[in-house]
Amino acid sequence: MSPFRGSAPITAEWEHFGFEHADGVSTVTFDRPDKLNALTFEAYADLRDLLTELPQRGDTRALVLRGEGRAFCSGGDVNEIIGETLKMDADRLLEFTKMTGAVIKAMRECPIPIIVALHGMAAGAGSVIALAADFRIASRSAKFAFLFTKVGLSGADMGSAYLLPRLVGLGRATQLLMLGDTIDAEKAERYGLVSELVEDDELDEAVAALARRLATGPFQGYAQTKELLTRELDMSLSGALELEAVTQALLMKTADYAEFHAAFNAKRPPEWQGR
Amino acid sequence: MSPFRGSAPITAEWEHFGFEHADGVSTVTFDRPDKLNALTFEAYADLRDLLTELPQRGDTRALVLRGEGRAFCSGGDVNEIIGETLKMDADRLLEFTKMTGAVIKAMRECPIPIIVALHGMAAGAGSVIALAADFRIASRSAKFAFLFTKVGLSGADMGSAYLLPRLVGLGRATQLLMLGDTIDAEKAERYGLVSELVEDDELDEAVAALARRLATGPFQGYAQTKELLTRELDMSLSGALELEAVTQALLMKTADYAEFHAAFNAKRPPEWQGR
Amino acid sequence: MSPFRGSAPITAEWEHFGFEHADGVSTVTFDRPDKLNALTFEAYADLRDLLTELPQRGDTRALVLRGEGRAFCSGGDVNEIIGETLKMDADRLLEFTKMTGAVIKAMRECPIPIIVALHGMAAGAGSVIALAADFRIASRSAKFAFLFTKVGLSGADMGSAYLLPRLVGLGRATQLLMLGDTIDAEKAERYGLVSELVEDDELDEAVAALARRLATGPFQGYAQTKELLTRELDMSLSGALELEAVTQALLMKTADYAEFHAAFNAKRPPEWQGR
Repeated sequence: MSPFRGSAPITAEWEHFGFEHADGVSTVTFDRPDKLNALTFEAYADLRDLLTELPQRGDTRALVLRGEGRAFCSGGDVNEIIGETLKMDADRLLEFTKMTGAVIKAMRECPIPIIVALHGMAAGAGSVIALAADFRIASRSAKFAFLFTKVGLSGADMGSAYLLPRLVGLGRATQLLMLGDTIDAEKAERYGLVSELVEDDELDEAVAALARRLATGPFQGYAQTKELLTRELDMSLSGALELEAVTQALLMKTADYAEFHAAFNAKRPPEWQGR
Repeated sequence: MSPFRGSAPITAEWEHFGFEHADGVSTVTFDRPDKLNALTFEAYADLRDLLTELPQRGDTRALVLRGEGRAFCSGGDVNEIIGETLKMDADRLLEFTKMTGAVIKAMRECPIPIIVALHGMAAGAGSVIALAADFRIASRSAKFAFLFTKVGLSGADMGSAYLLPRLVGLGRATQLLMLGDTIDAEKAERYGLVSELVEDDELDEAVAALARRLATGPFQGYAQTKELLTRELDMSLSGALELEAVTQALLMKTADYAEFHAAFNAKRPPEWQGR
Repeated sequence: MSPFRGSAPITAEWEHFGFEHADGVSTVTFDRPDKLNALTFEAYADLRDLLTELPQRGDTRALVLRGEGRAFCSGGDVNEIIGETLKMDADRLLEFTKMTGAVIKAMRECPIPIIVALHGMAAGAGSVIALAADFRIASRSAKFAFLFTKVGLSGADMGSAYLLPRLVGLGRATQLLMLGDTIDAEKAERYGLVSELVEDDELDEAVAALARRLATGPFQGYAQTKELLTRELDMSLSGALELEAVTQALLMKTADYAEFHAAFNAKRPPEWQGR
């Protein structure tokens, strides 16, 4: 547990998705398989809160997001979310759309590397959650659909119009967000939207292997790589060079940097402490 | 017609390119085929003015740009433009280069989705106009040449050094803009510069099909997708999330969003009104 | 020599890499082949100083960076750099990391186009130096490894977390910088990290050909293409259009622009003067 805690309690039970923790890896499982893991208001709220809380728990060095059943996540539920928003006033609508954006912001600002395990459909909010992760391991069955215009909304949702051009370029992002058509895993890989493409029966092991690697590696190095990748999208070259210089000077004072040097000269693998 | 009009008249006739309107789709045809549709000062001015006027006409939900004859557009005419600029004072030169930039700015800020139909050469200003469109449908014969350095100028022209790295990455953009060499449609597609690659005899129908789809779809959703893709290239993640939250909350108050929900539950296709 | 010089002398001899100049092309050769051209503190300092001085010499229109022996450059030396930094105070560490960033800044701000000739390994600082060049000509044997996390540091080093996402997209950049794994020349080419991929025995000639082309071409056009590509990564669309308009108006007053027009009408190749 981080020493920088005050009065707020740690959440005892996450009620709106499955949550497990083992060996430094936390796993969120979207678990409404009969609805293709469609999200509810409460699931968004739980994601936002978990991502804020998790770094303070101090026990998690990699976070996995996955879906139960035939799909990763089909996005906001048509009746439980779309139907309900039709009855809302403007201020409540904005409260909802801000919450969904807060989930993405928390994903990008959380120092813990996030892996999504993709099989079947990642649609709407599900596709943006995949987009905001650090690693997208996809099996052949995976599909992406940024289908917001198909429900009459803007293709820019939860940061998709910021993130997608920065992963696949403005041309392909325009096509995917404006039209909302589905693309398969192979095309997504070609576009740069998939970190690792595996066979369907290899997905769980590929995700577990990467999570283990991240959980047992030099955690500060990983966390500061993620942090700077996120921040430097919004910085000038000069500012970025300055930020990297101070960050790297700080990391040269960590135990892991000294450990690398000792291990290298002793011709043995380093034993990372993550600090 | 938009109610937000004052004294300025609508242009009755565009003299420097062909212009047609039907079923919500406006089409500009560069029509100097004997010059490979090279642009003149007047054609730039007409493009700038049309793009400003078109959203106010209220009758256009998709704009197509195409070229008559063997090419899309070979860029600024060597004698009618380059020859003339050699005689100009610095202030007049700047007035000209600002006008060409204003065309690109108007393309990106126009809420109407823009499709370019590419066959044969898109060179110089023609290649940047293609770059600034939302959709580039290219036939096998299409070629791109950002050839500005070959006439002794900077490869950065009309926003090319801003737009191209955001479509194909800084490495490939450097190569294309610095050297000015021609690339064919297949390489352009691989780089992310082509939205849809079709056979030569399929180009017209592919363009017409996309224009129809855009013209009959949820127009506000499309327009706000384009607007936010454009703006968020210049915004931070936090600002982008805020902009997307308010935009989406506004669109949740549109007729099209309610129509999607009604149609979904009635198991029928939505009838989009575009508002 | 530039007339804008004061008291500072020109460096007579670069002691920490090979340096040659011929026909407008300067060549830096990393020449510690027994160490795979690992960098030392002094090599960084020499690179920083050379890149500042070179534009003022006025004799160089293309700069080539290459490595002697089996590799381009394996990055910072494990004992001469990593070992030494372990003994340093925070202020000295920051002075070192700022110097490495200054090399990258000087590469991007130097108006002279920079070509790296890549064969064998480009690792750590070697991979970031390659990333900051304008052209990466790679032979089949070339490999990239942004291996900073493997020594316990942040994958963001010398601007890698700023540059790499702008060349290959955020997804692939995350994978390469977070994990530090090696990729070969073919994958690097597919990602957009290689300008030209050639056979091993063709590398020297491909580099020489591009250097000759750059050295005999319209130098101001090339220099202002590089300058604007660099600056416009950090600018808004409006600002970029303004910068391109004034730059292009200025270049329309150069001898090379008039020469293009004269040569075109005389049906002869232009004779570029580079001004």
